[in-house]
Amino acid sequence: MSTDAPATTDAAGTPADRLTAVLAASAASARPLAATGPDERAALLDAIAGTLDAHADELVHIARDETHLPEPRLRTELRRTTFQARLLADRLRQGLLTDVRVDHADPDWPMGPRPDLRRTTVPLGPVLVFAASNFPFAFSVAGGDTASALAAGCPVVVKAHPGHPRLSRRTAELLDAALSGAPAGTFGLIEGVEQGATAVRDPRIRAVAFTGSLRAGRRLFDLACARDEPIPFYGELGSTNPVVVTPDAWRRRAAAVADGLATSFTLGSGQFCTKPGVVLVPDAAALIAALPAVTSGPMLTPELTDGFHAALADLTATPGIEVALRGEPTDAGVPAPVVLRTDAATVLADPDILERECFGPATLLVEYASTTEVHDMVAALRGHLTATVQAGSDDDALALALVPLLAEHAGRVLWNDWPTGVTVSDAQHHGGPYPASTAPATTSVGTAAVARFLRPVAFQNVPDGALPPELRERAPGPRLVDGRPQP
Amino acid sequence: MSTDAPATTDAAGTPADRLTAVLAASAASARPLAATGPDERAALLDAIAGTLDAHADELVHIARDETHLPEPRLRTELRRTTFQARLLADRLRQGLLTDVRVDHADPDWPMGPRPDLRRTTVPLGPVLVFAASNFPFAFSVAGGDTASALAAGCPVVVKAHPGHPRLSRRTAELLDAALSGAPAGTFGLIEGVEQGATAVRDPRIRAVAFTGSLRAGRRLFDLACARDEPIPFYGELGSTNPVVVTPDAWRRRAAAVADGLATSFTLGSGQFCTKPGVVLVPDAAALIAALPAVTSGPMLTPELTDGFHAALADLTATPGIEVALRGEPTDAGVPAPVVLRTDAATVLADPDILERECFGPATLLVEYASTTEVHDMVAALRGHLTATVQAGSDDDALALALVPLLAEHAGRVLWNDWPTGVTVSDAQHHGGPYPASTAPATTSVGTAAVARFLRPVAFQNVPDGALPPELRERAPGPRLVDGRPQP
Repeated sequence: MSTDAPATTDAAGTPADRLTAVLAASAASARPLAATGPDERAALLDAIAGTLDAHADELVHIARDETHLPEPRLRTELRRTTFQARLLADRLRQGLLTDVRVDHADPDWPMGPRPDLRRTTVPLGPVLVFAASNFPFAFSVAGGDTASALAAGCPVVVKAHPGHPRLSRRTAELLDAALSGAPAGTFGLIEGVEQGATAVRDPRIRAVAFTGSLRAGRRLFDLACARDEPIPFYGELGSTNPVVVTPDAWRRRAAAVADGLATSFTLGSGQFCTKPGVVLVPDAAALIAALPAVTSGPMLTPELTDGFHAALADLTATPGIEVALRGEPTDAGVPAPVVLRTDAATVLADPDILERECFGPATLLVEYASTTEVHDMVAALRGHLTATVQAGSDDDALALALVPLLAEHAGRVLWNDWPTGVTVSDAQHHGGPYPASTAPATTSVGTAAVARFLRPVAFQNVPDGALPPELRERAPGPRLVDGRPQP
Repeated sequence: MSTDAPATTDAAGTPADRLTAVLAASAASARPLAATGPDERAALLDAIAGTLDAHADELVHIARDETHLPEPRLRTELRRTTFQARLLADRLRQGLLTDVRVDHADPDWPMGPRPDLRRTTVPLGPVLVFAASNFPFAFSVAGGDTASALAAGCPVVVKAHPGHPRLSRRTAELLDAALSGAPAGTFGLIEGVEQGATAVRDPRIRAVAFTGSLRAGRRLFDLACARDEPIPFYGELGSTNPVVVTPDAWRRRAAAVADGLATSFTLGSGQFCTKPGVVLVPDAAALIAALPAVTSGPMLTPELTDGFHAALADLTATPGIEVALRGEPTDAGVPAPVVLRTDAATVLADPDILERECFGPATLLVEYASTTEVHDMVAALRGHLTATVQAGSDDDALALALVPLLAEHAGRVLWNDWPTGVTVSDAQHHGGPYPASTAPATTSVGTAAVARFLRPVAFQNVPDGALPPELRERAPGPRLVDGRPQP
C-alpha cells in the first residue's frame, strides 16, 4: 500500500518522539539481551505465547473488527502464532538454532598448524520489523519475524501496519507485559510511514524485515543499501506462485484440481502471499467449467480493495487476457472472485504477465498447447515463494521433469498440493529468488528464520572459561567437532 | 586500487567480446552444473587441486615475478589453496555442506496437520568473483570464492586482478584443463575494470564476491543493489583488526607481545586484510623500545605502494598522531615499516582514527591511561574481520571482559594470538560487521563459505523418486529429521 493512515499521538507524545524513545531503548537493551542464554530466551518466547493465548478472545475480537477476517481463521492464525514462539523456544533449549563448530588445535593440519577455533553466532542487534496487513497475528506485531529476532537475542522494533492499529497496540501491550523480565527496550512499537523510513536509516537499527508490496519494499530496501553502513534487508515483496497442471493430472484428477484451485485462490479473499495467481493448464475451458462456485469475503482494507481493482483492470486491459468467470460478491463493496484467462502465446510474447501479482481473489489461467510451451513459460519465470505441479501419477513424465525446473524459480516446490497454508517447522522455507525475497538464502517462516538475525563469530585460542557457554569443551548440544557431526 | 592496467586483447577478441562470450557460456553451464551430485563436484575440486599442485613450480615462478612475494610464502599459499579445494571436496562427500532437513507428514502437528516437507539447497547460478591482489593464489583465480562457488554447483566468472595478469591467465588455463569433464562454461576469466562493472549489472550473474578496498567494493555493492533484480554481494572491504594489550599482558608477556606484533604487522609487507593496524597499549614507549628490528619487502604493485604512502601521510597529518619508529627499507623504492603512535584522548575525540586502514607495513599504537578508555575505544569500533586481546593470565579480568565486547565488532576474536594467518577449517569465520563484510552472516574462508552460493528450497509432498537425492527417505548423510539431528 502506498499510504498509511496518520499515526495517532499517544502518551509518549508525537510519533517522532515515540520513535526517538523506542530506538534509544532498543539500542540500550541490545547488550543485556545478547547476554541472555537460550533458556532465558526460550522462557521469554513461552511467556509471549502464554500471554497471547490467555487473551485470545479479546485479541480475536479486535482483529475481527479491524480486518473483517472470519473468527475461525483468526483463531487458527493466533494458534499458529503462539505455536511458532513455542517451537522456537523448544529449538533454543535443544541447541538447534546455532550452528556450533569446534576445531581443536591440530599441529598436523595439512595447510599448516591449526589453532583452536570455535564458531558460534551472536545477535545482530536491534531489528526493525514491518508488520504485514494480511496476517494480523502471524506476520504482525508478535509474528514470525518478532519471534525469530527475539530467539536470536535481538531487540525488536515493530512498525505497526495501519490496517489494524488497535490490535497492534493491544498486542504490543501484551508483549510488554510478557517481556517484563527482559531488558527494558527489548520490544517497541512505532507507527507511521515516515517513522518507518527514518528507522531504516537509523544507525542503531541492524537489520530490517519486511513483508508487503514490491513498491514499498523496494523503496525501503534501497534505503537500507544506501546507508553509510548498509544492513541486511529481509524483504518479501511479491509472488504469483505459479501452478502447472499437467495433461495427465487433468485426465486423472480434474475434480481435485478444480476444487483445490477454487479453495486456494479465494482463501482469505486471495490475500495470501502464497495465493496461486497463475495456473498453466491444458484446457482452460474445461477447468473453468469444472470449477465449483467461488465466493469471497471482504478485503482487509479499502486500500487493498482499490489495489485489487486496479491490478485487475491492468491485467484485463492487456490484449489477450479476458475475464472467464466472475463469482458472486457476498456483499456490497466486496470484490467478486475472478478467474482470468489467456494463452501461452500471449504470455510468451510478454512473460511479465507471469509476474503481475493481483493481491486479492483472482487467478489467471494460461492455456498451453504443448509441453514446449510449458517449458518456455517456466524458463521465463522470475522469483516466487512457491511453485506447484499438479501431476497425474508419480510416473507423470512432465511433472517429474518440472520439479527441478520449478526449483530454479521458487523457494518451495509442491506436488499435488496447494501453496496457501504455510506450516511452521524445521524444514519450511518461505523465500525464493527476488522479488519473492530480497535475501533468497533466508526464510521468514520456520525455525531456520532465526539465522536472519544472527552473525557468526569464531573464537581463536580463547580459554575455555572465557568462551560463550555453547563453545566450551563440555557443553551439551549438537555441534560439528573436527569435521564430525555430534548430535 | 582505482585503476586497472589496460586489459590485453587475446584470441577471443577484445575484452568486451570476451565478456560477452564468458557470460553466455557461464549461463549455459548453470543448469548442467547444478545437476551434478556432490561426488562429481568433489572430483572437480580434486582435479583442480591436483593440476595446480602438478604445476606448482611454474605457477610460483610466475607469481614471484609478478608480485615480488618471496617463494616460500608463495609455496605455502599455493598449498593452502589446493588444501582448501580438497577440504571442500571431502566435506561434499560427507554431505556436510548442505543443511538437509526432513519433516515427515504429521497429522498431529500442533498448529494443524503438517505435510511432508524436506529442505535442501540449490546453487544460485553464475557467480562473479573479483580477485584480490594480495593473495595471488588463495584469493585469486583459483581461490576460496572460486572453490566455494564450484562446491555449491555454481559456474564461476573471475575478474582477474591486474596485479598478476600472467599468473591469472595461466591459472585459468589450468582450471580449464582440470574442468574438462565439467559443463562448458563452468569457469571463465575476464579482465578490465569496466568489464567487471558490466558483469555485476548483467542479469545472468546471480551473486558477486569481492575482496579489496572500501572504495572499489562499495561502488560495486551499490551497482549490485541497484539492479532491477538485486543480487547478493559478498564484499570484504577493509579492517584495522584492533588489538588490545592489557596491563597484565604487558607485565607478564612483554617480549612475546612485542615480538608477535612486529612479525604480524610486517608479514607479507603488511598486505594482509588481517594485519593488526591498531594496537591499544598501556605503555607505548615501552612497547616501542621492546620491538625487535622490523623490516619489510617490496609491495605488490606501484599502486599499493602509492596508496600506502598516501594513507600514512593522511594519518601523520592528523594532530596527535606521530611516527614513533621507522624501520630500515630493504631496498630503494621499498616502503620502510612504520610504527605510529597516539593516545586515547586523541582517538576518543575522533574515533574514525580506529578505522583508517593503512594497507602496508604500518601499525598505530594507542596509549591508554585507564580501563575506561579501553572500554570507550572498543565501544567506538565499527566492523572488523578480527579483534585480538593480549592477556596476562587466564584470570586477566580486563581481557575476560573484553572477549564478548570485541565480538560485537569482529568476525573472529583471538586470545594471545595474532590475526594474520587465517586457517581453513570448518569453524573458521572470515567476515564481520560492515565494512569487514557487506554480508556479515557469511564467511569467505572455511567450509561454511559455500553457503554464500546456495539457496534453500523446500519440497512439499513430492514423491520420493522426484526429490533431490539427498532428500530421499533412505539417503545417507547428516540431517535434521523431525527436529532430531541425525549424524
